[in-house]
Amino acid sequence: MAVFQWQRQIMFRDCDPAGIVFYPRYFEMMNDCVETFFDQAIGWSFGQMHINDGLGVPMGQISTRFEAPSRLGDVTHWRMWLTRLGGASVDFAMEALGGDASQNETRPERRLRTEGTLVCVDVQAMKSHRWPEAIRTRLAPYLEEGTA
Amino acid sequence: MAVFQWQRQIMFRDCDPAGIVFYPRYFEMMNDCVETFFDQAIGWSFGQMHINDGLGVPMGQISTRFEAPSRLGDVTHWRMWLTRLGGASVDFAMEALGGDASQNETRPERRLRTEGTLVCVDVQAMKSHRWPEAIRTRLAPYLEEGTA
Amino acid sequence: MAVFQWQRQIMFRDCDPAGIVFYPRYFEMMNDCVETFFDQAIGWSFGQMHINDGLGVPMGQISTRFEAPSRLGDVTHWRMWLTRLGGASVDFAMEALGGDASQNETRPERRLRTEGTLVCVDVQAMKSHRWPEAIRTRLAPYLEEGTA
Amino acid sequence: MAVFQWQRQIMFRDCDPAGIVFYPRYFEMMNDCVETFFDQAIGWSFGQMHINDGLGVPMGQISTRFEAPSRLGDVTHWRMWLTRLGGASVDFAMEALGGDASQNETRPERRLRTEGTLVCVDVQAMKSHRWPEAIRTRLAPYLEEGTA
Repeated sequence: MAVFQWQRQIMFRDCDPAGIVFYPRYFEMMNDCVETFFDQAIGWSFGQMHINDGLGVPMGQISTRFEAPSRLGDVTHWRMWLTRLGGASVDFAMEALGGDASQNETRPERRLRTEGTLVCVDVQAMKSHRWPEAIRTRLAPYLEEGTA
Repeated sequence: MAVFQWQRQIMFRDCDPAGIVFYPRYFEMMNDCVETFFDQAIGWSFGQMHINDGLGVPMGQISTRFEAPSRLGDVTHWRMWLTRLGGASVDFAMEALGGDASQNETRPERRLRTEGTLVCVDVQAMKSHRWPEAIRTRLAPYLEEGTA
Repeated sequence: MAVFQWQRQIMFRDCDPAGIVFYPRYFEMMNDCVETFFDQAIGWSFGQMHINDGLGVPMGQISTRFEAPSRLGDVTHWRMWLTRLGGASVDFAMEALGGDASQNETRPERRLRTEGTLVCVDVQAMKSHRWPEAIRTRLAPYLEEGTA
Repeated sequence: MAVFQWQRQIMFRDCDPAGIVFYPRYFEMMNDCVETFFDQAIGWSFGQMHINDGLGVPMGQISTRFEAPSRLGDVTHWRMWLTRLGGASVDFAMEALGGDASQNETRPERRLRTEGTLVCVDVQAMKSHRWPEAIRTRLAPYLEEGTA
């Protein structure tokens, strides 16, 4: 099984008056992670997907457990993989690990864990649409073994 | 049981290139709904809570099902209530109902349904902290019957 | 001359780790103010404008002076008026006045002052487009005297 | 004179229903550019600045001209330099150049041009504070010749 990896530093704009990441900003990071996964791992950029192909992958449902706070300057390491590949949807799991950017941490701490469902849709009709066959083929290696 | 109600029009800044609400923006709305609930229903504004009392209510976990898209100009009607009141946390449920602003809809459509856990924390120590007794008393009426 | 007035409470999501409004969030407020001006004062909602009429009013240029910080819970009072009404653009001025929500301030403090240019465009072609005549007529009363 | 350079791809979350960057998101990019300039060019991360040193660099005023729209997937190339270095403030200029990510553009197009003033402040007192001498020394090389 392949796991997609992505990295994101916590910026000033992510943080709230308590000095930690404001949780809706995490969902923007998750969206960036999914977008970068489709671009870099699958070879299907959101520009190509939305503008040329008229398709999109909106979130159908998402469940997130916030396990530890992230702070300004932390570098968060994201991992994303698939747990079910349906005809017009895909279930994924994602986690973000972090460490204080200024320290050499030997054991990164898990900041959050997410599970969600992306639905492939025809953007114009806003109706579900089967994955293009080439995309399905490229998604398959990210499927966790024993979950298909 | 009391249910907190709140209303929010979908603005241009909420919408993505597909013309529907970009889902991380929904989490900002949920945060506004929780903040307004504490201010108006409980009488504990986030200013009072964070600045004067040194407490906060970060999200511990949240699960959301997006059932139908919302569009620019839609007025969304939010309902929030509690499903468990713990010593230093509270579980809540929330739903957003919508209708095309330009039509007289008789049956509003559910756009999303959320369940989450807010944890009362000491912001400085970032550790859980028992609800102040006065707050606990004011939270209780929003608890769904049969769920305590 | 008519002045459009609008009110906005500073929410948790607007504030940065220093406890004051993160300035890009002010630009979201300005966009909400412009959007509400077109909806309520001009009778041209962004939904009607963008979806039905295929037009938009992107910002051509904007200059803002931040005069005093706003804090969590502050209620900001916005005033907007026009300083030039062109064939396919309009110059506006805007200011936000604030006061601590918890005090009876007799003299509100100016938080910021903005001047900008909105350009009426055909969204598909992304080219400037003359104001529809009915819209031009409704914009005129908001023009500051002696500035036409 | 040194010029700070930074690169940012336009993501889905940056774009509005017209398919172009929603302008308040540009101000978030500008904030990221300033933050990365202080971190990478000056060696003063916002974490160090805010948390350890109790200082901040809020925007005092900013003027931006939007010259051409940016679209989903575009890579924008940012350039930032200084035009005045005061005792407790600094004026900067910034521009973003872009090109369609999918094409080999020979002449990049300017998307926006900004001029602004950052004020060094004591975050607790929210009062202006002289630049630490070591920071001043490291800012100087980014000053445009003939502008000191």
